[in-house]
Amino acid sequence: MPPLDGFRVEKDLLGEACIPKNALWGIHTSRAVDNFPISGEPVGAFSDFIRAFVTVKQAAARTNRALGYLDEERAGLIEAACQALLIRDDYRNHFIVDVMQGGAGTSTNMNVNEVIANIALELAGQKPGDYQILHPNDHVNMAQSTNDVYPTALRLGLLTATAPLLEALEELARAFEKKADEFSDILKVGRTQLRDAVPMTLGQEFRAFQHAMETELHHIRSQSEAFLTVNLGGTAIGTGLNTDPRYADAVIRELGKLSGLAVTGAADKIEATSDVGAFVLFSGVLKRLAFKLSKISSDLRLLSSGPRAGIGEITLPSVQAGSSIMPGKVNPVIPEAVNQVAYLVAGYDVTLSMCADGGQFQLNPFEPMIGYCLFSSLKTLTAAIRLLTTKCVSGIAADAEQCRFLFERNIGIVTALVPLLGYDTCSRIARRALAENRSVPELVLQEKLVSQDVLAGLLRPEFLTRPNVGQVEAAFR
Amino acid sequence: MPPLDGFRVEKDLLGEACIPKNALWGIHTSRAVDNFPISGEPVGAFSDFIRAFVTVKQAAARTNRALGYLDEERAGLIEAACQALLIRDDYRNHFIVDVMQGGAGTSTNMNVNEVIANIALELAGQKPGDYQILHPNDHVNMAQSTNDVYPTALRLGLLTATAPLLEALEELARAFEKKADEFSDILKVGRTQLRDAVPMTLGQEFRAFQHAMETELHHIRSQSEAFLTVNLGGTAIGTGLNTDPRYADAVIRELGKLSGLAVTGAADKIEATSDVGAFVLFSGVLKRLAFKLSKISSDLRLLSSGPRAGIGEITLPSVQAGSSIMPGKVNPVIPEAVNQVAYLVAGYDVTLSMCADGGQFQLNPFEPMIGYCLFSSLKTLTAAIRLLTTKCVSGIAADAEQCRFLFERNIGIVTALVPLLGYDTCSRIARRALAENRSVPELVLQEKLVSQDVLAGLLRPEFLTRPNVGQVEAAFR
Amino acid sequence: MPPLDGFRVEKDLLGEACIPKNALWGIHTSRAVDNFPISGEPVGAFSDFIRAFVTVKQAAARTNRALGYLDEERAGLIEAACQALLIRDDYRNHFIVDVMQGGAGTSTNMNVNEVIANIALELAGQKPGDYQILHPNDHVNMAQSTNDVYPTALRLGLLTATAPLLEALEELARAFEKKADEFSDILKVGRTQLRDAVPMTLGQEFRAFQHAMETELHHIRSQSEAFLTVNLGGTAIGTGLNTDPRYADAVIRELGKLSGLAVTGAADKIEATSDVGAFVLFSGVLKRLAFKLSKISSDLRLLSSGPRAGIGEITLPSVQAGSSIMPGKVNPVIPEAVNQVAYLVAGYDVTLSMCADGGQFQLNPFEPMIGYCLFSSLKTLTAAIRLLTTKCVSGIAADAEQCRFLFERNIGIVTALVPLLGYDTCSRIARRALAENRSVPELVLQEKLVSQDVLAGLLRPEFLTRPNVGQVEAAFR
Amino acid sequence: MPPLDGFRVEKDLLGEACIPKNALWGIHTSRAVDNFPISGEPVGAFSDFIRAFVTVKQAAARTNRALGYLDEERAGLIEAACQALLIRDDYRNHFIVDVMQGGAGTSTNMNVNEVIANIALELAGQKPGDYQILHPNDHVNMAQSTNDVYPTALRLGLLTATAPLLEALEELARAFEKKADEFSDILKVGRTQLRDAVPMTLGQEFRAFQHAMETELHHIRSQSEAFLTVNLGGTAIGTGLNTDPRYADAVIRELGKLSGLAVTGAADKIEATSDVGAFVLFSGVLKRLAFKLSKISSDLRLLSSGPRAGIGEITLPSVQAGSSIMPGKVNPVIPEAVNQVAYLVAGYDVTLSMCADGGQFQLNPFEPMIGYCLFSSLKTLTAAIRLLTTKCVSGIAADAEQCRFLFERNIGIVTALVPLLGYDTCSRIARRALAENRSVPELVLQEKLVSQDVLAGLLRPEFLTRPNVGQVEAAFR
Repeated sequence: MPPLDGFRVEKDLLGEACIPKNALWGIHTSRAVDNFPISGEPVGAFSDFIRAFVTVKQAAARTNRALGYLDEERAGLIEAACQALLIRDDYRNHFIVDVMQGGAGTSTNMNVNEVIANIALELAGQKPGDYQILHPNDHVNMAQSTNDVYPTALRLGLLTATAPLLEALEELARAFEKKADEFSDILKVGRTQLRDAVPMTLGQEFRAFQHAMETELHHIRSQSEAFLTVNLGGTAIGTGLNTDPRYADAVIRELGKLSGLAVTGAADKIEATSDVGAFVLFSGVLKRLAFKLSKISSDLRLLSSGPRAGIGEITLPSVQAGSSIMPGKVNPVIPEAVNQVAYLVAGYDVTLSMCADGGQFQLNPFEPMIGYCLFSSLKTLTAAIRLLTTKCVSGIAADAEQCRFLFERNIGIVTALVPLLGYDTCSRIARRALAENRSVPELVLQEKLVSQDVLAGLLRPEFLTRPNVGQVEAAFR
Repeated sequence: MPPLDGFRVEKDLLGEACIPKNALWGIHTSRAVDNFPISGEPVGAFSDFIRAFVTVKQAAARTNRALGYLDEERAGLIEAACQALLIRDDYRNHFIVDVMQGGAGTSTNMNVNEVIANIALELAGQKPGDYQILHPNDHVNMAQSTNDVYPTALRLGLLTATAPLLEALEELARAFEKKADEFSDILKVGRTQLRDAVPMTLGQEFRAFQHAMETELHHIRSQSEAFLTVNLGGTAIGTGLNTDPRYADAVIRELGKLSGLAVTGAADKIEATSDVGAFVLFSGVLKRLAFKLSKISSDLRLLSSGPRAGIGEITLPSVQAGSSIMPGKVNPVIPEAVNQVAYLVAGYDVTLSMCADGGQFQLNPFEPMIGYCLFSSLKTLTAAIRLLTTKCVSGIAADAEQCRFLFERNIGIVTALVPLLGYDTCSRIARRALAENRSVPELVLQEKLVSQDVLAGLLRPEFLTRPNVGQVEAAFR
Repeated sequence: MPPLDGFRVEKDLLGEACIPKNALWGIHTSRAVDNFPISGEPVGAFSDFIRAFVTVKQAAARTNRALGYLDEERAGLIEAACQALLIRDDYRNHFIVDVMQGGAGTSTNMNVNEVIANIALELAGQKPGDYQILHPNDHVNMAQSTNDVYPTALRLGLLTATAPLLEALEELARAFEKKADEFSDILKVGRTQLRDAVPMTLGQEFRAFQHAMETELHHIRSQSEAFLTVNLGGTAIGTGLNTDPRYADAVIRELGKLSGLAVTGAADKIEATSDVGAFVLFSGVLKRLAFKLSKISSDLRLLSSGPRAGIGEITLPSVQAGSSIMPGKVNPVIPEAVNQVAYLVAGYDVTLSMCADGGQFQLNPFEPMIGYCLFSSLKTLTAAIRLLTTKCVSGIAADAEQCRFLFERNIGIVTALVPLLGYDTCSRIARRALAENRSVPELVLQEKLVSQDVLAGLLRPEFLTRPNVGQVEAAFR
Repeated sequence: MPPLDGFRVEKDLLGEACIPKNALWGIHTSRAVDNFPISGEPVGAFSDFIRAFVTVKQAAARTNRALGYLDEERAGLIEAACQALLIRDDYRNHFIVDVMQGGAGTSTNMNVNEVIANIALELAGQKPGDYQILHPNDHVNMAQSTNDVYPTALRLGLLTATAPLLEALEELARAFEKKADEFSDILKVGRTQLRDAVPMTLGQEFRAFQHAMETELHHIRSQSEAFLTVNLGGTAIGTGLNTDPRYADAVIRELGKLSGLAVTGAADKIEATSDVGAFVLFSGVLKRLAFKLSKISSDLRLLSSGPRAGIGEITLPSVQAGSSIMPGKVNPVIPEAVNQVAYLVAGYDVTLSMCADGGQFQLNPFEPMIGYCLFSSLKTLTAAIRLLTTKCVSGIAADAEQCRFLFERNIGIVTALVPLLGYDTCSRIARRALAENRSVPELVLQEKLVSQDVLAGLLRPEFLTRPNVGQVEAAFR
């Protein structure tokens, strides 16, 4: 049967299919597009993944040439096609299989093989689909299986996608640092269990946020390094069937050179081929970050609550009108967005765990969803962190007056007098203050428990916000 | 080999084992105890489950007698043993297999069969282990398989365990109702997104809590009814192999009589035998309740935050000293406990879902963990609700003064003037109020936008806390 | 400052912004687009949601006209704009705020208000942005708050999005039914805990799948009805502030007429405004369906495993080549996709639960993520079910020969002889069969335990696959 | 009011309470027992936690003596009491507060303080409750807050509880190693996506399990080290209020000496006091292990499926009879238990995450549930791993005959001929083999594609289970 006008015909083990004449993808991609109309998101939208995939293909082509299995011309064409793909953004539109797919990623690999082959054919002055010259499977996929190239590309793509997250986190840490410096003299009530506790400075509160971000930065960086160990060279099940014994080491070396990353081969490629532990743990570390961000965002929402009937110790920048019905209302929309992204990341962690559990025998067929979860988490977390930095934290202002107002009413300050007056007397003062709606210093002076000078000394910020015992006594001598 | 002193010997397909002479359990229980030292919680701790299991056995014995497969004497002995078990609490100590077990609940079924058989033997004046007279499998388990009795007992046990939850919920609803009545005249700031919004009464806030509880009550009651449909009579895989064609209907009828519940047989027992959908959905409805309780608990913690540097509109009863280091500090420990129980329930929901996914072919082998999750959720939720009612909600006091203080400072009240003054004027007033730290009514009067009388009319509670448009205009004529 | 060429200027409480001259959205949308570059998915991609939102606006406009608050002309323009939106798909491109947003959906509501206003202005021959004639907030949003229209539109949108899911499920049930009929005579081994159990027919196995789908259908339909109860008319916090007392009932009536749905108003709109219980429970019922689909998909993968070294009782249709390295390999890619979608749904359920927990006081600000989770679950589930029906179940073929081969080797068939030969003899036969690698019938005959005729009678399919006791005895007389 | 006979009276800020005369706990414990009847599990059941808590108290007493704040006698008494507690198991029965508690662990701390004080009083010849001599708060709790001692004890307790897990994992790895050696010559079908793939040895399959366990061992060991960094010395909110500036370093040093662990103080104790990131990540690494165990368990269940109508390549040891109705049936009950424990761990991970999200401001009040989740995960995982080792893996036998039977029927072996015969010829052979129900070698010989000698060479195990290209060619020369 001759093809329709504007189409070419390709074949596979199921039969024939018509492919648009100039399409860079082929029959396997076409079948997959038909099989997986699920999320609507094409795999090409995940550009870090595609770039990593293409780099793996390039490394394989170089290695196959070096070992004498691929001739100069074909290897050169594949390399040129890979280079073109890495440079030209518009080629991404040819990666059209749905990111949510069955088949352990075979369809993505097929799509990549076909696009590379057809770009190479075009570069060689041939028409797409003339695979006798350069074949997607025989040449582009030579010495490879989806089962080793897909997880390898996934790992490297995730590493690349982690870089902007780290950068965003670093900027957020700096933004918190600035605020910590700016607020270092503002005394305020510390709170535990939503109850007034002992004093601190607003600077200390933001310094803790800064340090939290720096800690997360460290953990994400160090956990992501697990992705440098890949199963490339293992082919179908990790035994390396149909590769030259020199291939595995050589292709890893090439991949390291091309990617600039310290890639190493897994010690046991059979184990590595079905293993998804690195994804599970990385998802865990992203969740750790997500909940830290969520906790901080909730704190920011609470600290800025009001403007009149809440805590109101800080003001978040106004970024949009908050209500169509309540004039003048402004809401903490950025931290709210961050909370939601955190919950999304936690949900993906559960999805990913279930995928991890589902893999049987020598392969986990659910890596496409694992990849989706991690790339989506990275994307939304990075976006959320940037928004938090630029549209919220950087513009936070302290309401020093409100901090002081609440601080002075605070009963928890009585804790600082325990070493001097004892727990029992302090308990009595605390209860009296609450019952009579008066301040602790007022009562202490009224009862002549200490002199005004001594009290002033005791309540100096430098004693209230750090280890003070012995220091307080010294101040009385 | 003769048994050690104080022991008897029992046999199974693996060989022999020594059983303490007077133990009411036998060799299958003994193997299972050895095989599953996991949680340390014996299945006997789940008394609703054991009672339901025993009732199923009793129903089977009656049916087998009625159909002529079990003689009068044996049937009578089994019935008597079941009755004894339902009455005497101390027998529960003989259900010693770990609640977390492999084998789809076979070990629990074996434990029940053996205990019933041995109690029956004792009642007949025989020694435990003399199974030739009455056999755990041949007689107690007649026409049954673990695969139909275990899920049936689980469902009925859960129904029983749901009753105290419903009762506790009902009491909590009543406690909120009382507070709603008590607080019906206290005007306060409503809050959205932690920002001051428009007015409401504290009574309205607690009425919403009451109605929420009533809604949950309704949903739990109606969803739990799905447990009335059971697969009893399906035996090993739901085909009913090795039962009399009359058996399935008859045993369901007996079970209904004995339990007092409107039990019905599943239409497709093959489908029902591997089906765990009712558990998944019931877990979902428990999670719904859990998060409603958690939301309310968080609200109570926030509303009572302070005592000085928070919202402080209500006071929770003090139930224990809050801090060893901070004199006079009292914490919202009961709502905090409720939050944690809610999160536990949400975790069990995930565990249960994974168990649901893991079942293959004609049976889900993970029902023991499913049962554990649901019984644990019911137990902790019921306890948490009771604590919330008796140790928290019933003793909540309003701080009417603080409500009024925050209400009068609130800028959101300007919303009520929009129909009269327009959105733009109101926006301007709102911003001026915030910038100059003044109240909305003060500015409105100062700018002579309305007269004092009119303003007083506009700000009457009955206009502020319900549909008011038209009413406000009417008040001006 | 005059606007740049091709732009118009709009104002809000934060200042001014340039808007492309012909954009149908305005300044609030513009700010939100800037604030929430998170998922990259515009809210316009959720067409059921947008349609429901527009319908709510139309109902409000009609009601405001009927009560005399909105003049004929403006009301007419708003209605015409709404109608245009419901008809013309291209207008959807103007709903450009990111579906993941802070602010409890205010930005979506603002986007809808602005697009309706500007379409109305165009219909009236005015330019976009000339809001003095028709204002997005004063007129389109009249008597509304995001806090009542957003949750109302979400509920109705979800109801609409559930319809194709139900339809897809119905078709899947029919596909299973056909196979159940087709396979009704094929005897096979039933399996529990992955071990050979007692006999059944392949038809019974597929009948169970059919019934499972019908059960899910019932549950989804009945649970989704909770979405018919809405808080429309409650405005900002459910008190109905700034509405006419007649408004709430009237707008619900109009909404019912326009949508054709039996919409009712919540009894306690304060409770309803912050309530997300219906979402939590609906997510639970979707998860129930997801895991049932996942279980069936796993069964299909296992039943078709092989082709040589697995179970191989059925063959799934080949839909694509399975491997680039292994010639002739075909994989169960469709069921694998279904498994993954199920896990995604389970993840969204966790995300949604966390959002549910996060809502404070009179509103849950995380409804945008709640909506995202549910719409995404519905979309991917519907797609997965359709694929399962058309690309897998409809084309399943039985391998009757393999079913019989495995059936005849099966030792579990010995169970059927228990009523005749007793448990002990059967155990011995079973062990001998396994040890000597022989079949049960062979041994039974060799040991002359029953005659060939009797055995043939006993092993007739009609006795092996349903309640048989008494029947078997009858067959011997 | 004089106390009842057999009781003593104690006081706190809420009033008085009667305590059994000889009880080693006091009024705060009594209130807490009353407040939290939730799980029924007393905190004393978590012995690693209690031991760590007592060690922290001992370190504090030493430090307070060294710094001159606690006299020799009292310090000596406290130390002696702590020593007694660490030695005598029966004292654990006095830690009776429920492990699930509100209040951020204050009740546990109070319970520990009271028990230590009362043991010390007994050692001094005094009666329990005579706190004027030695006070639970003033002396035992000196320079401490629940908010630093609780998280510190939790971390150290978890470290101790991790040791047996690591040991159990090590033994499991050894068990897999033995089997890998034992099975190294057994050729079998590798499987991907439940479909026959290319050859491997059963030894390689078990070697991968061994390596997986070794990898998990490494990750758990390295992640648990984060628990060595503690916030001890930070007191109420991390500022170190009411401590001597020398205290923090000194107490950490003492704790290191007493525990034998390389404990260090957190750099920012304010950040550390509310931080639960280490718990979130450790839970993630436990989940990683759990799902690896679950995957392996599922593989073992599948590999041993049958005995006749499944894969049956291995046999698991029989540990109990599998069915009351099906004679001779034996089930994979141990791996099934492991699966369920894995799902429990995954559920706890979600619970813990939600707890992590809930902490506000300077403290996370939900650490009691966090601790419960982690201790329960460690306990059940350790038990599950031990069972898997001793009752399953150690006794696994290979069915070499079945492995060979399935191997020889396998079509995937054709892959090994691709380098020689090309992809197209191989595809044709594969399809013919499947259609005609014949073996690949048979067809290859029949078609005279290679000689018998060459084929034998090609299909040698050493070529089929490792990188073979080039080697195969070499074998032909």
